[in-house]
Amino acid sequence: MKNTQVILARRPVGVPKPEHFELRETDVPALQEGQCLIHTSHWSVDPAMRGWANDVPNYSPPVALGDPMRSFAVGEVIASRHPDYAEGDVVEGLLGWQTHVVTDGANIGHKVTETDLPRSYALGIMGLNGTTAYFGLRETCAAKAGDTVVVSTAAGAVGSAVGQIAKVMGCRTVGIAGGAEKTRQCLAEFGYDAAIDYKSEDVATAIAAACPDGVDCYFDNTCGPITDAVMTKLAQGARITICGTAAITEWDPLPIGPRVHRQLLVARARMQGFLIFDYMDRLHEARDALAGWLRAGKITVREHILDGPGAAPGAIEMLYKGENTGKLIIKVG
Amino acid sequence: MKNTQVILARRPVGVPKPEHFELRETDVPALQEGQCLIHTSHWSVDPAMRGWANDVPNYSPPVALGDPMRSFAVGEVIASRHPDYAEGDVVEGLLGWQTHVVTDGANIGHKVTETDLPRSYALGIMGLNGTTAYFGLRETCAAKAGDTVVVSTAAGAVGSAVGQIAKVMGCRTVGIAGGAEKTRQCLAEFGYDAAIDYKSEDVATAIAAACPDGVDCYFDNTCGPITDAVMTKLAQGARITICGTAAITEWDPLPIGPRVHRQLLVARARMQGFLIFDYMDRLHEARDALAGWLRAGKITVREHILDGPGAAPGAIEMLYKGENTGKLIIKVG
Repeated sequence: MKNTQVILARRPVGVPKPEHFELRETDVPALQEGQCLIHTSHWSVDPAMRGWANDVPNYSPPVALGDPMRSFAVGEVIASRHPDYAEGDVVEGLLGWQTHVVTDGANIGHKVTETDLPRSYALGIMGLNGTTAYFGLRETCAAKAGDTVVVSTAAGAVGSAVGQIAKVMGCRTVGIAGGAEKTRQCLAEFGYDAAIDYKSEDVATAIAAACPDGVDCYFDNTCGPITDAVMTKLAQGARITICGTAAITEWDPLPIGPRVHRQLLVARARMQGFLIFDYMDRLHEARDALAGWLRAGKITVREHILDGPGAAPGAIEMLYKGENTGKLIIKVG
Repeated sequence: MKNTQVILARRPVGVPKPEHFELRETDVPALQEGQCLIHTSHWSVDPAMRGWANDVPNYSPPVALGDPMRSFAVGEVIASRHPDYAEGDVVEGLLGWQTHVVTDGANIGHKVTETDLPRSYALGIMGLNGTTAYFGLRETCAAKAGDTVVVSTAAGAVGSAVGQIAKVMGCRTVGIAGGAEKTRQCLAEFGYDAAIDYKSEDVATAIAAACPDGVDCYFDNTCGPITDAVMTKLAQGARITICGTAAITEWDPLPIGPRVHRQLLVARARMQGFLIFDYMDRLHEARDALAGWLRAGKITVREHILDGPGAAPGAIEMLYKGENTGKLIIKVG
């Protein structure tokens, strides 16, 4: 049996591009006692993968050259000598960009039990993206009913979940996205109360108009000029979740921008970095809530599905160019 | 009876200097029912007074031209037709730079009951400075035993209290101050485990040496290059209290500096603005603890006392130049 892998062949600086990856076929090794074999069906494409591919200090060690690209993936157990996993189990985890994975279970996140939902959801709304939205909004942003919640990359996989969870919680939601089609999605599909197109509008002016009482919560995936504009309109006691920094491609040397200290001081506001890996023991709590909202039709999911391993090398670049129109997934099974 | 006032005569931009103030004598009005007359003995000089004197958006409205400069002060009730205040009571509050205050009580903070301690302490360690240190360290910084706590303006009225409270709480303390005399004070008087002279040392290098496991808590009164250096050494889960921004004199337009977002994200750190006015209903809690530590000799206080109202106009500039060697107070009584 053959395992098709997409390996990191060359070290990128910044956004990984097709030339940094190669496809490779290897033999699937025989199962040992305590192992199981997973046949992956969907690979994830996430902003964090830029950091994983670069050789810079980060919250995870970089992917080694020659290794399959680190990624979340979902698949089915097709053979098992592992006591916890049986043939037919659907599992999700950091399985990497490869069609077959022999594992002792260490890189399996969890068994997917919500089999009534599309399996790919395990990589998005029921996976990294949805749980990030859930905890980043409820814990770090400490959102509560009545708050005005501003979301950057508002039509993205995380942002669209943040906006919809905030609506369920009784917040007023304002989405910032790039272009007419994404702002249309924000209003028509993701239920935002207002949407701002940062490509055609002055964000500070638009935020002031959309948030007359200021911004209580800002869930930020961008850093950069969008964030600088939102920071000028903080309500007293505002909470800012720094979830991603998509607008900044290089952090060495540190880029400069407006100092935030006085804005935080005057508003007694809080700005905090968020990483879902700090919530791994509570993911079930988020999944239970999200599955309920999905089944009740309270959350809409948009996916952008690429076909086959050959689409993987260009996928991270596509994500950073904002060319995807929904959670970016590579279907391989 | 005459009231000697130091009024704001001209509007400063930035640090108020002697030319912005004038001394004025007025008659003390007759007491009405519900009023009391306070004879002040000590006026406070605090960094926040720069903001109060400037006509820029802030957390308090600016002092009107012609009014006595807003300040904390302490004094004795010398006549009363107010049911809550009796002749002989010692009171502290936003009484302003004036020797006599007729008030209905609205600008009185509290009655000073710790009459065994020097009365001037009501303006420093038992007043704005000590309570700011107490809540900023315990609440916003969420310091706990074993944490490495870094303090900027470490020998100042707030900083020296932060460092000593942190020691009482079982933290490791690292003070940053300017010059050999202040770093000597940090080590010899305020019990810091290490002291860094930002005028003669590279702060990032010195922080790395003094904090081998990173910075858990940073209590910041400066903003600017010192803060930029500390931000490069955050421990995971670090908490930063923004209490003051003494290194930056102008905030319009916003000054630029290194973007902090990635540092906060990688460390899952939190940066939060702190203002003591949000803790006014809990001040007694801080005062009780501080009085206990003072009586037990666990906290050392350094005061720099100027003599008479004529010293007031130059006092804020003196504070911003760092020429004071302890909590700056004007003795008038």
